[in-house]
Amino acid sequence: MTKITKFKIGICQLKVTIEKNANISQARNLIHAAAEQGANLILLPEMWNCPYSADLFAEFAENLNDINSSPSSLMLSEVAYSLGVTIIGGSIPERDASSGRLYNTCCVFGSNGELKAKHRKIHLFDMGKPLPGDVHFKESDTFSAGEKPTVVETDFGCIGIGICHDLRFPELAILYRARGAHLICYPGAFNMSTGEALWELEQRTRAVDNQLYVATCSPCRDSAGSYMIWGHSTVVGPQMGEIIGTTGHEETVLIAEIDYAKIQLTRDSFSLENQRRDNVYRFIDLHQESP
Amino acid sequence: MTKITKFKIGICQLKVTIEKNANISQARNLIHAAAEQGANLILLPEMWNCPYSADLFAEFAENLNDINSSPSSLMLSEVAYSLGVTIIGGSIPERDASSGRLYNTCCVFGSNGELKAKHRKIHLFDMGKPLPGDVHFKESDTFSAGEKPTVVETDFGCIGIGICHDLRFPELAILYRARGAHLICYPGAFNMSTGEALWELEQRTRAVDNQLYVATCSPCRDSAGSYMIWGHSTVVGPQMGEIIGTTGHEETVLIAEIDYAKIQLTRDSFSLENQRRDNVYRFIDLHQESP
Repeated sequence: MTKITKFKIGICQLKVTIEKNANISQARNLIHAAAEQGANLILLPEMWNCPYSADLFAEFAENLNDINSSPSSLMLSEVAYSLGVTIIGGSIPERDASSGRLYNTCCVFGSNGELKAKHRKIHLFDMGKPLPGDVHFKESDTFSAGEKPTVVETDFGCIGIGICHDLRFPELAILYRARGAHLICYPGAFNMSTGEALWELEQRTRAVDNQLYVATCSPCRDSAGSYMIWGHSTVVGPQMGEIIGTTGHEETVLIAEIDYAKIQLTRDSFSLENQRRDNVYRFIDLHQESP
Repeated sequence: MTKITKFKIGICQLKVTIEKNANISQARNLIHAAAEQGANLILLPEMWNCPYSADLFAEFAENLNDINSSPSSLMLSEVAYSLGVTIIGGSIPERDASSGRLYNTCCVFGSNGELKAKHRKIHLFDMGKPLPGDVHFKESDTFSAGEKPTVVETDFGCIGIGICHDLRFPELAILYRARGAHLICYPGAFNMSTGEALWELEQRTRAVDNQLYVATCSPCRDSAGSYMIWGHSTVVGPQMGEIIGTTGHEETVLIAEIDYAKIQLTRDSFSLENQRRDNVYRFIDLHQESP
């Protein structure tokens, strides 16, 4: 199959409500809207089927070992196939059938509707003592952490997946670059303080430090739940961490053009990869042998 | 000796001329000005005794194995002692006496005038094919690269040293955090394009990703030589990569207050260190046994 290096990505900044069926239906609408505007690769937000609220995760969780029992996954699989698009399915709460544990999980569907990869959030968002005015949140009270990085080969390049707080760790992005990622997709729901201070900063740095594309997708601000979300889904380029497209905080579909030729152009002009000093420091990817 | 955790840092954004003696004299003036404004720790720019110009590095180079033969170091040692300040001496071209090689080297002087550490720039700035409109520069045509990271215990905390392009590598900052740095000082001379796009971005990200302070010091823009310098020396805090102090592009002394208590406050509120996943990735500091 010919790999496509220049294409449109569609970012669905969804308004998440308290009704799962309504969320599935509206996510489908936004995916259709993105495809109609020419998007071939479509990204959903973190927790797109469920408000970002610890007391709801168990109730909204689905079994992703058998996607026929997961209405959220069935919709993504069906719409990927019917529209012929690749979908990075944000995340939903997953209940592991064997252990009963909950995970914050992203499913990736190819344009033939197949489930290509499943990424469980590796870095859970656990606050310690809150600073004055800060929200308190401890994700590990509810979720278990994923144990493996996820890089997936798609028709639209080699894509690394991180979920929200995974963005805060340069190590994961370094690891994805080393595994050949062209693009890292981070569904995320930063809050108002980290959103304003760090959301764009971290995306831009991951892109320039690793000379690749970064795309983020957040739920919109007036999603259900007490957790106030920053929004501002964004696509960043490899050369100077340039903003290729971004949004405000309302529900919207962002379309941005990605051209992987710019990655090689950037690396030819200036290869950070070749300038790393592996006699000074070395970075070990512990799952590299069994991705 | 009691370690001081709250103090003023003085950043000397020097105008570098073609006359080495004038540079030494003016650097001394700015160090005096910083000390008069209460600075206890003083940072100079990259290449403060020499224009940033490849054809001048050999001519301006000094032997730092014997600081009595280095007029630039003698001034720093003398002024550190006479004012009772700690000086992170930016960088100058060093000629290694035994190999004859040139290095881009930072010397650190304690308040008793002793040379405490010497950091040779680890990541040399080597451009490949220039992008349209970009400056061309290949530092390794002139300089050899340093082989060791540098963390130095001072009266004003544990300080990691990087020089300019060293800032672009998240690995070095991760290594300094792991070695216990409170502050990373990066003397640097970013150019106009990387300056505008990346200088502040990278400083802020190194600070927030590692929950420590970052200080940078650049020569001022109208320094001698054809290389146009961005300026904008800056001090960044650990909590949200907050800008504590910054400058424009003219010659100036920036005074900023550092309070290491904020590092612990930030880490208590949210410990990125404890959230790293050493069963997923691991980072090896190859000189850790012999710093």
